[in-house]
Amino acid sequence: MVCDDIPGTLRPPSFALGVPEGDDHERLICTSCGFIRYDNPKIIVGAVCTWESKVLLVRRAIEPRVGYWCMPAGFMELNETTEAGAAREVWEEARARVRIGPLLALYNLPHISQVHLIYSATMLSPDHAPGSESLETCLVGWGEIPWGDLAYPTVEWALRQHAERGGLAGAPYGNRAETYALP
Amino acid sequence: MVCDDIPGTLRPPSFALGVPEGDDHERLICTSCGFIRYDNPKIIVGAVCTWESKVLLVRRAIEPRVGYWCMPAGFMELNETTEAGAAREVWEEARARVRIGPLLALYNLPHISQVHLIYSATMLSPDHAPGSESLETCLVGWGEIPWGDLAYPTVEWALRQHAERGGLAGAPYGNRAETYALP
Repeated sequence: MVCDDIPGTLRPPSFALGVPEGDDHERLICTSCGFIRYDNPKIIVGAVCTWESKVLLVRRAIEPRVGYWCMPAGFMELNETTEAGAAREVWEEARARVRIGPLLALYNLPHISQVHLIYSATMLSPDHAPGSESLETCLVGWGEIPWGDLAYPTVEWALRQHAERGGLAGAPYGNRAETYALP
Repeated sequence: MVCDDIPGTLRPPSFALGVPEGDDHERLICTSCGFIRYDNPKIIVGAVCTWESKVLLVRRAIEPRVGYWCMPAGFMELNETTEAGAAREVWEEARARVRIGPLLALYNLPHISQVHLIYSATMLSPDHAPGSESLETCLVGWGEIPWGDLAYPTVEWALRQHAERGGLAGAPYGNRAETYALP
């Protein structure tokens, strides 16, 4: 039994790759019942959360990038909204309650078929604590952000873009390729 | 062999529902190899496309809502960006080439686990024609939009929100519950 011989997908022996009638992409099709399994990009929801002038960071307890710092973010679940998913991730990873504000950024990571939807959020209190996926959590000022120990480029993009706009609404930012000067 | 006994998901006999260690959601887990199959929301990408003051509509040739009118939109595919996916859908459904502009709207449809990302787009020429999923395509002025024959509420939301902003960038709109007065 091999379920993951195509990375990131499920392919039990009864499925074969084929192009369904009227389609132009290969799909996994059940050779016995014709059921078509569609694989599509996944959504990551998260939030840059602030309390006064400080920002909430979590240190990852799970792979990949164990020990590096992130804003709270994770895979959106079935039957939730993007805002509810972002607030859930903040609670799960940092045990903080937030009011989700404007959409800060939409990042496309087509090489791993992910779309990241990152909100600006305001903490309802300064309380925070690590959830099971975090080693520690912290509320830090701009000058204390561990720029060299961030888990992903998207974390730096989101922190800098949030600071540029001060959490206010506007057209969401996109991927940023530029190197920023550190403050 | 039953692959679709949970609607919208794949569940061959070797999979069973369970909560993986450290998780708090039920997932489909392979009983022989432990592979976890995650089901997550799907992204619909689309665009309100204009040529001068007219908007591009497509009449659906496929279920659901055959015969009703939409802006071009459909499921985002693996390894593409949201903008590329929106442009691809416009080409597939309406055989029009467009420049994708700002993100117009983000709609949450949690009851069907979909997130709709609708862009404003400008047609590169007035050319359009039905693709295989469309019965017909048209470029219509505001007063000619078939409000009573739109396929989904999101189509009306996107058309009206696009008109409000004239295709310019800004914070993306969200779901609209209000009933609009017809023009």
